[in-house]
Amino acid sequence: MANPSVPTQSRWFWTSFRVRYQESDQMGVVYHANYLNWFEIGRTEMIREMGFTYRGMEEEGVLLPVVDLDIKYRRPARYDDLVTIFTRMTAFSPLRIHYEYEVRLLSEQEQVDLGARGWHTESELPGALLTAGSTRHVWLNREWKPARLDKCAPKLYDALKDTLLGRKE
Amino acid sequence: MANPSVPTQSRWFWTSFRVRYQESDQMGVVYHANYLNWFEIGRTEMIREMGFTYRGMEEEGVLLPVVDLDIKYRRPARYDDLVTIFTRMTAFSPLRIHYEYEVRLLSEQEQVDLGARGWHTESELPGALLTAGSTRHVWLNREWKPARLDKCAPKLYDALKDTLLGRKE
Amino acid sequence: MANPSVPTQSRWFWTSFRVRYQESDQMGVVYHANYLNWFEIGRTEMIREMGFTYRGMEEEGVLLPVVDLDIKYRRPARYDDLVTIFTRMTAFSPLRIHYEYEVRLLSEQEQVDLGARGWHTESELPGALLTAGSTRHVWLNREWKPARLDKCAPKLYDALKDTLLGRKE
Amino acid sequence: MANPSVPTQSRWFWTSFRVRYQESDQMGVVYHANYLNWFEIGRTEMIREMGFTYRGMEEEGVLLPVVDLDIKYRRPARYDDLVTIFTRMTAFSPLRIHYEYEVRLLSEQEQVDLGARGWHTESELPGALLTAGSTRHVWLNREWKPARLDKCAPKLYDALKDTLLGRKE
Repeated sequence: MANPSVPTQSRWFWTSFRVRYQESDQMGVVYHANYLNWFEIGRTEMIREMGFTYRGMEEEGVLLPVVDLDIKYRRPARYDDLVTIFTRMTAFSPLRIHYEYEVRLLSEQEQVDLGARGWHTESELPGALLTAGSTRHVWLNREWKPARLDKCAPKLYDALKDTLLGRKE
Repeated sequence: MANPSVPTQSRWFWTSFRVRYQESDQMGVVYHANYLNWFEIGRTEMIREMGFTYRGMEEEGVLLPVVDLDIKYRRPARYDDLVTIFTRMTAFSPLRIHYEYEVRLLSEQEQVDLGARGWHTESELPGALLTAGSTRHVWLNREWKPARLDKCAPKLYDALKDTLLGRKE
Repeated sequence: MANPSVPTQSRWFWTSFRVRYQESDQMGVVYHANYLNWFEIGRTEMIREMGFTYRGMEEEGVLLPVVDLDIKYRRPARYDDLVTIFTRMTAFSPLRIHYEYEVRLLSEQEQVDLGARGWHTESELPGALLTAGSTRHVWLNREWKPARLDKCAPKLYDALKDTLLGRKE
Repeated sequence: MANPSVPTQSRWFWTSFRVRYQESDQMGVVYHANYLNWFEIGRTEMIREMGFTYRGMEEEGVLLPVVDLDIKYRRPARYDDLVTIFTRMTAFSPLRIHYEYEVRLLSEQEQVDLGARGWHTESELPGALLTAGSTRHVWLNREWKPARLDKCAPKLYDALKDTLLGRKE
């Protein structure tokens, strides 16, 4: 983040879905590796809400592999839970992007409120925290070489920057 | 199906979701085992629409493992496709239940139409067929012994029978 | 199978491995979709034993997607079980290939015997049958068009044919 | 670690296996969530080598869920790679256990050498580093309440302590 005036994080985006039976394990809870898939769903839906698709990015030759990540497990999710993934950018440059995630279990009322009013504020996220994590990614081209996003996908670069700055959308 | 007057199949139920990145493989298409998870999602959402949950059934001690299944693969699904799973019962007794599935890729218009008008008729299902399959299940209790559903969960039994007969819902 | 003198099946090949924790589900048994991954491991190791690799085949542009399959579930496998996958070809032509599989749980003695003496005969396979299945595949090129294996990979074609005929290896 | 004389890490344990087709994604590499399954395989095989099984521990009512973890991705693994997981304990008490992992790709010669001579020294691990990570766990009982391992499974507790101290085995 060359420019110190750029805020360090975007607003939260979110998406909800049911836990699949296949994601449970013999402890009766979600197997811990599945949260990484859910984080990816969070990223995918965040980019879609910004008017792009990660699929389209890949088709244009921009790859975004994970470089490193960490997760904290607080409470287990269970089969058929309606979980909500909150996702935000916490760093962004022409060379890399960082995300933060919270997997939360909302009451029905909290779910309704979130759908009706959204969540643009800095107040605490709704529901019970199940899992929190973060991932760091670099932009690569088809040959798996580092790519400058402002050069190879300038529209996407501008949209991500604007999202981080809280402009338009 | 002791009673020959019982119809051999329920109407179609359906649910839609995005293909996950994790479900793709290095051929660039959905790995073929994932369709079994999707069939399970179809069953889960069908039972929910009938006013029950498979999770609740398990908590009451009714298990429903797969005894056998078959699948035909026509066209591959791909990452980020919005796929629709159609599910119906094709046989039902106090001892067992059979399901049929079609995974289909609908156009945006077909998706809208399906949401608006539903699909109760016998006409052909909308969209392009990707995969078709069927599964056979038996009712078991917690000790993995065969259970008669009309005895161990009579409300669910009646609801399933009514669905097959096209009554109420 | 143009030539009626070609036998309808190869000998059995096998490979063994431990069931992973991630493969268990909340019923305490292996989730049923995982057996499809195991069948693929059976195919992969069979081809390796014949002196080829499925990875190498793909790198040369030969794809082998599943067209249809069926499975019967007899007894559940469980976490940490040392399971053995038996695999054989049951049909083979320049355009397609069929496989059959049995997932079996062997006693320690049966495991030792299998390693020492192998299994080339027609007698019953050792151990307890857990799951049986079969898959049908077609040869495709990189553009997902049907490919004649005798034209696009003649060495592999000959090796598969010889295996089916029980010659050399 | 109450006792400052307890070393902070055990020797490395290892196990090798082939990457499965299902673990690849459309970037042509192993999907990043799969490394968590591989870490679990590393833990499972380490405990087996010590004369216990994680399955047996669970059957006796000792659970060991992941509390938090982190991973660094250096180079991608690919389908059919023969990968080696190195695992060691880095902290251990009656209440918790920490592990460290390295996923490495060894040459055939390195694989042979590892099998013949093992790896008890402090020298650098063989092969190319693909992924490194660590996990923290707590001991729980069947009710998901913290359990003191020295009370609920004293033999296992002693074996783990001896392994950390480098005694017997």
